Amino acid sequence: MATSQFRAAAEAELNKRTEIAKQFVQFYYSLFDNPDRSQVAQLGNLYNDQSMLTFEDGKFFGKQEIMEKITGLPFQKVAHSINDFTVQCLFTGILVSVGGELKVDDEANALQFSQIFVLVPENESYIISNDLFRFRYS
Amino acid sequence: MATSQFRAAAEAELNKRTEIAKQFVQFYYSLFDNPDRSQVAQLGNLYNDQSMLTFEDGKFFGKQEIMEKITGLPFQKVAHSINDFTVQCLFTGILVSVGGELKVDDEANALQFSQIFVLVPENESYIISNDLFRFRYS
Repeated sequence: MATSQFRAAAEAELNKRTEIAKQFVQFYYSLFDNPDRSQVAQLGNLYNDQSMLTFEDGKFFGKQEIMEKITGLPFQKVAHSINDFTVQCLFTGILVSVGGELKVDDEANALQFSQIFVLVPENESYIISNDLFRFRYS
Repeated sequence: MATSQFRAAAEAELNKRTEIAKQFVQFYYSLFDNPDRSQVAQLGNLYNDQSMLTFEDGKFFGKQEIMEKITGLPFQKVAHSINDFTVQCLFTGILVSVGGELKVDDEANALQFSQIFVLVPENESYIISNDLFRFRYS
């Protein structure tokens, strides 16, 4: 395949997976930020038993540990907003890097964060195999 | 396999790949920061024709485009230092997130950056299949 054809095919595949990633991440944060905190448990559908979360320096293996961490976070309200969003293709998956800020409860100041997801196909949809979350202090 | 055995196996594998990633990333930045800029071309050995680099909003497909970008960066001297380093296992690969700062030429101020690598096995070593670089402005 000529180089320009290879590049065009790579770009087309990247655009396709970028669309999937956008919808997935939008759905993820809409569940995460749901004012009805009982709905947050639905995030569990987006992980499986092989998933891993690194949250700051904490390591959480599998859906159960991950959901215990997420549902135990110490706030009643949270709102994420995204500043940068970058996608690359992995073998059958999608690598997503998100930078943004979040506000918790009635705090005036937003906290900068970065989050990396690896999405992999499962049952005609995608799940999160890898999730790395870190606050960014200035 | 019992849950605790699964977790112990997952942690052991993570520790193993974390060691590999540390050595790899240390080697990568030592090449990148080499005062003899002619040596930087050796970074080309760490990418292949399927590799992708996202540098800020620029997309570079394959070793050739990536090396043109890297060797064309507008400085004579650069020094990276790492503040945070996080690793997770991928199917056969390694996901690495680096946060740090870099100084170029004789600038007094360091620039904050974050960089994500996916390392995959090739020829009894690893190459970079995915590289996402972004400056972090406060």
